[in-house]
Amino acid sequence: MMARNEPNLQIRVMSRRRNGAISILVMSAIMISSMRVVAASTAAKAVAASTPPLADKPARHKRLNIESISNNLKAMEYAVRGKIAIEADKISEELKHPSPSSSTKYPFDHIIYTNIGNPHAVQQKALTWPRQVMALLQLPDAIGINHPEAHRLFPPDAIERARQMKASLGGHGIGAYTHSKGVREFREDVARFIEERDGARRGSVDVENIFLTAGASEAITMVMTALIKDSSCGIMIPIPQYPLYSATLDLLGGHKVGYYLDEQSIWGMNIEELERSLAEAKSNGVNVVALVLINPGNPTGQVLSSQEVKDIVSFCARHNLVLLSDEVYQENVYRDEDEFFSSRRAADELGLIENDAIQLCSFHSVSKGVFGECGQRGGYVEMVGIPEDVNDCFYKLAASKLCSNAPGQAMVSLMCKGPNRGDVSYESHEREKMAVFEGLKDRASIVSQGLDNIPGFSCQPATGAMYCFPSVHMPPGAMRASNEMGMSPDTLYALDLLQTKGICVVPASGFGQKEGRFGFRTTFLSPEMRTVVDSIRDHYEQFCAKYAD
Amino acid sequence: MMARNEPNLQIRVMSRRRNGAISILVMSAIMISSMRVVAASTAAKAVAASTPPLADKPARHKRLNIESISNNLKAMEYAVRGKIAIEADKISEELKHPSPSSSTKYPFDHIIYTNIGNPHAVQQKALTWPRQVMALLQLPDAIGINHPEAHRLFPPDAIERARQMKASLGGHGIGAYTHSKGVREFREDVARFIEERDGARRGSVDVENIFLTAGASEAITMVMTALIKDSSCGIMIPIPQYPLYSATLDLLGGHKVGYYLDEQSIWGMNIEELERSLAEAKSNGVNVVALVLINPGNPTGQVLSSQEVKDIVSFCARHNLVLLSDEVYQENVYRDEDEFFSSRRAADELGLIENDAIQLCSFHSVSKGVFGECGQRGGYVEMVGIPEDVNDCFYKLAASKLCSNAPGQAMVSLMCKGPNRGDVSYESHEREKMAVFEGLKDRASIVSQGLDNIPGFSCQPATGAMYCFPSVHMPPGAMRASNEMGMSPDTLYALDLLQTKGICVVPASGFGQKEGRFGFRTTFLSPEMRTVVDSIRDHYEQFCAKYAD
Repeated sequence: MMARNEPNLQIRVMSRRRNGAISILVMSAIMISSMRVVAASTAAKAVAASTPPLADKPARHKRLNIESISNNLKAMEYAVRGKIAIEADKISEELKHPSPSSSTKYPFDHIIYTNIGNPHAVQQKALTWPRQVMALLQLPDAIGINHPEAHRLFPPDAIERARQMKASLGGHGIGAYTHSKGVREFREDVARFIEERDGARRGSVDVENIFLTAGASEAITMVMTALIKDSSCGIMIPIPQYPLYSATLDLLGGHKVGYYLDEQSIWGMNIEELERSLAEAKSNGVNVVALVLINPGNPTGQVLSSQEVKDIVSFCARHNLVLLSDEVYQENVYRDEDEFFSSRRAADELGLIENDAIQLCSFHSVSKGVFGECGQRGGYVEMVGIPEDVNDCFYKLAASKLCSNAPGQAMVSLMCKGPNRGDVSYESHEREKMAVFEGLKDRASIVSQGLDNIPGFSCQPATGAMYCFPSVHMPPGAMRASNEMGMSPDTLYALDLLQTKGICVVPASGFGQKEGRFGFRTTFLSPEMRTVVDSIRDHYEQFCAKYAD
Repeated sequence: MMARNEPNLQIRVMSRRRNGAISILVMSAIMISSMRVVAASTAAKAVAASTPPLADKPARHKRLNIESISNNLKAMEYAVRGKIAIEADKISEELKHPSPSSSTKYPFDHIIYTNIGNPHAVQQKALTWPRQVMALLQLPDAIGINHPEAHRLFPPDAIERARQMKASLGGHGIGAYTHSKGVREFREDVARFIEERDGARRGSVDVENIFLTAGASEAITMVMTALIKDSSCGIMIPIPQYPLYSATLDLLGGHKVGYYLDEQSIWGMNIEELERSLAEAKSNGVNVVALVLINPGNPTGQVLSSQEVKDIVSFCARHNLVLLSDEVYQENVYRDEDEFFSSRRAADELGLIENDAIQLCSFHSVSKGVFGECGQRGGYVEMVGIPEDVNDCFYKLAASKLCSNAPGQAMVSLMCKGPNRGDVSYESHEREKMAVFEGLKDRASIVSQGLDNIPGFSCQPATGAMYCFPSVHMPPGAMRASNEMGMSPDTLYALDLLQTKGICVVPASGFGQKEGRFGFRTTFLSPEMRTVVDSIRDHYEQFCAKYAD
């Protein structure tokens, strides 16, 4: 959540502030480490004296305290909703409920959240047809698909699809637990989707290898839970990367084995760098078990060519690494010359699937693409080359959570299988999808070019995904001031941008970057992005003046 | 998932069977342990030789294999969807798609699933009004709450509530990520619900201490993740218990510190037994950090009196244990003389909250009660006495998963706050809830008395929750046969019941029980339960004859 070298600030910013509570918390943070031994022995005495009165124990004797909880949880960092976002929420609350003292504090009237790929929060509309089907799935038959006036609100192809999906749900509706891997027929929709996308033989994707999950995040966590057997294990992750990977490795106590993307070649990957990273980790005694590929990239937006994907898949096969292929932005490819090429397809064309010579888990989600249905929490993982007994362990883990939410599973099915060509909603559904896509495509170039044109900024073209990841030259005064304040220079920058312009970005240090580079990640989702770019330009001038030396 | 002493069977039953695959898998299971060392060194060589050909590595060299995955995951057991349920699914598939050879194999035409508290899967209907609101939340405004003909399908109080909830969602709808703790206004509904239920002062429940989660399971896992710092930590769990607790402890590598419920006093709890269990664990060097209370009980159905709850809360305060209070069956209390009494209320009345002398996490869910909305995956945890910096760590963990599904959050809000008295849907909503409740209440006594009347069975009254947990006398032949087959006697019993009657129960050994006791858990949800009890009686006679000696 923040850099390890800023403990006081961590406590300060992570705490919910109420009147006067901040200073006390900062004090406790400073005091805790020196008090640890004393507190522990006092606690032991308190337990031994197993009689009341109970009421006067001070808070630090509590069983569940910041010293007693899992170190891995404590160490875990997650930048996207970290320090800057928490500060933004605080300001947002102040703006909504201004007190007499704070009402003129900020020169803006709302926060523009560009920190998170959350399209519906920045005015992207839900697609009509999938939502009509979802609504019908919620309604009991008699007042939904069988209501005599249902046709007044719902088109026939939504009613028909809801009827089919209710049959797939065994007539139980979405109120029943499903199979722990997800509704079988919905997984079949996923399987057909993958086969069509990759030009694979019909039936070549096995539904038993597909798990429907609460977004891709849950699937990624599930697989990593199995992979990290002990603290000697590590997983190769790109630098920069989406911080779920580092956060989950922190939580599981595994090694983060970073490999660098090449900023100058639009954040390209090269095999030499993968070999270097792997060799270095091995020489440090790390048992490297897997590699994370994010294509299209997050936060970097690169779209890999078929050859690049094949090279990476071959690298994994050669070194017997499980490939974790994060493909949640597969629909978000903006240049005519680019095409999404899945890791599965690469493995297939290399003969690695037929020969059972690759282990691959690929992740997808309804949260991105043109659906942008983040709040529905629907996603899937397809596993290739995973032994049945290991698959059974994943099933066991999924079963202990019973199942992922049935509406989210339904949304995955609707993403994978839209209205049929010729159905009444087909044209409008395609038109709506295209409108979202074109909007994203336009803003991708407006924002990346706009940022690249700011003197002191450098921003690669956003060829995919939903983000720009510019580097920003830090004036000398900002370097010094941030050092004195115990935060990274780009955290200082992002905080200043938030406080003066109301724009919430994520410091690049939260994703990882080369030593000496600074910058941030912004989405390009908001229709306000032109104004945002102007504000960022304006702010940077002021920032450079403020921190000139 | 199954007893540790039946490895071969574990592999056999856990594996998805395809033509002829079983025997191969059983063989591999036997071979694996002797091959482990060889395989590891061969794998090391394979990695060192980092050149193609890649295609001919045998499966056991794969990076992700049953030997290389997390031991904790491998060891984890989860009975509710374990061996018997997997076998039931297999038979169910065979019945749906009979082959010429198998068509006359079973003397029943469908499986009756009584293994899992999944009300909608056994004909319980969704409540109308909440589903109407949920449907409107899915529909974009123009074709939902603002559609000129919306009133033809939806009552005005559903439209009005959906309008309010959409405002709470910031106008973004359920397609956007929410705050990671859940939508603030929905958490306020939870807070008011708790205050009213417990007769607490309005405003005494802090929304910052409430997290909305994907069912109670996610909340329980979240809290336990923080509590188990290392393998010295343990949590007290009832015997018998809901296997999520033991499974999660397995996964996190913590100790299961069992305390026995007293079957003869309707599965009551007594403090002496808690003291005994705690003292024994401490003397074994276990750092006991928390106690799990399930009230009303699962699988046992006991409803604790206010004094019993107070005694347990005091015990936790005295020994500085975090109390994990699983209260998902709080609405499922069937005897007139019983009343649900929450742990929070007990702590409050004892002055422990005011004096900050208790740490309590209480869990609730939309899956049980009279909603039974398992598939929607909505739940919450309210935390009491948890330091802010620890709360912030929970927030960080929730943030790394972004948020729980927004429709599930909405369902929690609807459970906590129904239509207002006087609104058009108020009466019908109450009537529907009462009908579900009365049905459950009737079946609770029909099933528990029916089972108790079977010679050789003993079944305590089901005063709460959704389950009966009879003990079953095992004939000598069953003891011997199960031993020979490497499974627990009640697993043999449950398998035989499944194969001859098509009834799927969970062997009691999956929940834990006193040495020498045998039995099973059945829900009493299905309207077919009278027939089920007759079938169980009938089967037991045959079973006793078959395994007489």
